[in-house]
Amino acid sequence: MTRVLVTGAGGYIGRAVAARLQQQLQAGALRSLTLLDLHFGSASATPADARVRRIRADLRDPAALAQATEAPLDVVYHLAGITSRQAEDDFALGLQVNVLATIALFERLRSLGGCPIVVCASSIAVYGTPLPDAIDDSTRCTPTLSYGAQKRAIEIVLADYSRRGWLDGRAVRLPSIVARPAPADGALSAFASDLIREPAQGRHSICPIGPDGTLWLLSLPACVAGLLHAAALPAGALPPGRAWNLPALRASAGQIVDELCRRFGAGLAERVEYRPVAAMQAQFAQWPALATDSADRLGFRHDGDLASLIDNALRN
Amino acid sequence: MTRVLVTGAGGYIGRAVAARLQQQLQAGALRSLTLLDLHFGSASATPADARVRRIRADLRDPAALAQATEAPLDVVYHLAGITSRQAEDDFALGLQVNVLATIALFERLRSLGGCPIVVCASSIAVYGTPLPDAIDDSTRCTPTLSYGAQKRAIEIVLADYSRRGWLDGRAVRLPSIVARPAPADGALSAFASDLIREPAQGRHSICPIGPDGTLWLLSLPACVAGLLHAAALPAGALPPGRAWNLPALRASAGQIVDELCRRFGAGLAERVEYRPVAAMQAQFAQWPALATDSADRLGFRHDGDLASLIDNALRN
Repeated sequence: MTRVLVTGAGGYIGRAVAARLQQQLQAGALRSLTLLDLHFGSASATPADARVRRIRADLRDPAALAQATEAPLDVVYHLAGITSRQAEDDFALGLQVNVLATIALFERLRSLGGCPIVVCASSIAVYGTPLPDAIDDSTRCTPTLSYGAQKRAIEIVLADYSRRGWLDGRAVRLPSIVARPAPADGALSAFASDLIREPAQGRHSICPIGPDGTLWLLSLPACVAGLLHAAALPAGALPPGRAWNLPALRASAGQIVDELCRRFGAGLAERVEYRPVAAMQAQFAQWPALATDSADRLGFRHDGDLASLIDNALRN
Repeated sequence: MTRVLVTGAGGYIGRAVAARLQQQLQAGALRSLTLLDLHFGSASATPADARVRRIRADLRDPAALAQATEAPLDVVYHLAGITSRQAEDDFALGLQVNVLATIALFERLRSLGGCPIVVCASSIAVYGTPLPDAIDDSTRCTPTLSYGAQKRAIEIVLADYSRRGWLDGRAVRLPSIVARPAPADGALSAFASDLIREPAQGRHSICPIGPDGTLWLLSLPACVAGLLHAAALPAGALPPGRAWNLPALRASAGQIVDELCRRFGAGLAERVEYRPVAAMQAQFAQWPALATDSADRLGFRHDGDLASLIDNALRN
């Protein structure tokens, strides 16, 4: 039975993945679960189950890495990372965590010899500005954020470890995952979450892209399902390069507001103020038509339609 | 006037680059030249010119890195690297030098604040097997050697440093550079050099690809000219991504032998024995038609024809 490590297990996506894995553990489908992060949040109680181990430490610390990997592992969800805004603001930190500590994790896992499945949270930030008119499985990656460059470099390194037979890597490129709780955790794309959450909860929201700006969206539950599905796939089924885009719902900011108005009343629109910022428009408001043939074929699914997406986004 | 650092300055390409730069120094076109490598070879005398500094040290050593960069730098030729065969055989070493020490060099240069021009020796190994039917400036990189994966990861990181304005990076993808001296220095493609040098010098040569196997070739003098030209280009002229293929002459092993026979007599063919190895054929004997529009436009040139290539290859 499966022994699992989750890095970044205290983060927005990590907490949701950990919660789902704890359900699997209780259902007898997992053997052990190790959670690693700097912080786990005040709301999260110490796990009652002795098979769940929580390590509060920095992934960059070799001792933490050794502790997190001291027992054999079958699956690693590597979700720890410095988000896009912070990786722009503090380049050295982004480099240390997103690249160097990630490679140190791969090297540690290689040294242990078990060839675990490693699901890495990559990002659509591997695509840079100007965004192309359409994106599919063959689109070249030309990142124009340090976050995206770091994710792309790691995708390449992970594919090489996989080719060597040392890790069984799967890099899943995540779109904007909604709705992150306020305050934003440093993802430049977090405004997509604000745009859904804030007016829905009766608050004013400032949107840094115009109403025609298009986003790729996935709810947190659909994201968690995608990450777990990525771990469950047979290695032979994986797309070449072992990195792929998850299906995402494409919607404009205006369409999101319209959908929220249908749900919460037309007055909601008055709580949304568009203040487009040029740099945000270029990277975050021009997401083109997306074809995800590989992921579709492998059974990955987005939320289906905007109504369901908003439902799912407001549920977490 | 220009202050220059060359890493890997004791290697096959590094020695030739350093020799050319010393000529420039003596002609008054350079201000200083720092050469870094583990070894400089028995034939190379200590430079008489006080403006040439030679550091015999490991790039992975932070003290060596600090010493090599203690004076301000305008141009860095980063040629140090673990070659393809060794990077396959000793993965950790390749990772340490080709990725981690290279990033440490970039970080050191960033900390110094001068935004030097950084010419990196990348490689056509960024393209993996199965090689596509044609390669041009838009071909995706899907490395299937650790060497190629490491080079590609660094290209992406270098482009990001350049976007940030911290380095002025130029990653030049080198084809097979001929004719390397025997013994081979660990490049898997070194057989191309053996195929030219050994029979030309009257020795028997075993070729690990068949006579129809096609190579991309560039002589050492043309390679040096390309690297220096890459450093001289204005940043605004560089191709997007700041990584590009050098023009190379495409020739089959059989065509090379035919050309050598024209020069050294038909008996030469008897000194070449083809013993194709499947893994070598896939990566090294299927180089397709190459279009290098970006490099052509920027004034990069290959040797012109096979007769000139052999001339130039045998001259060094």
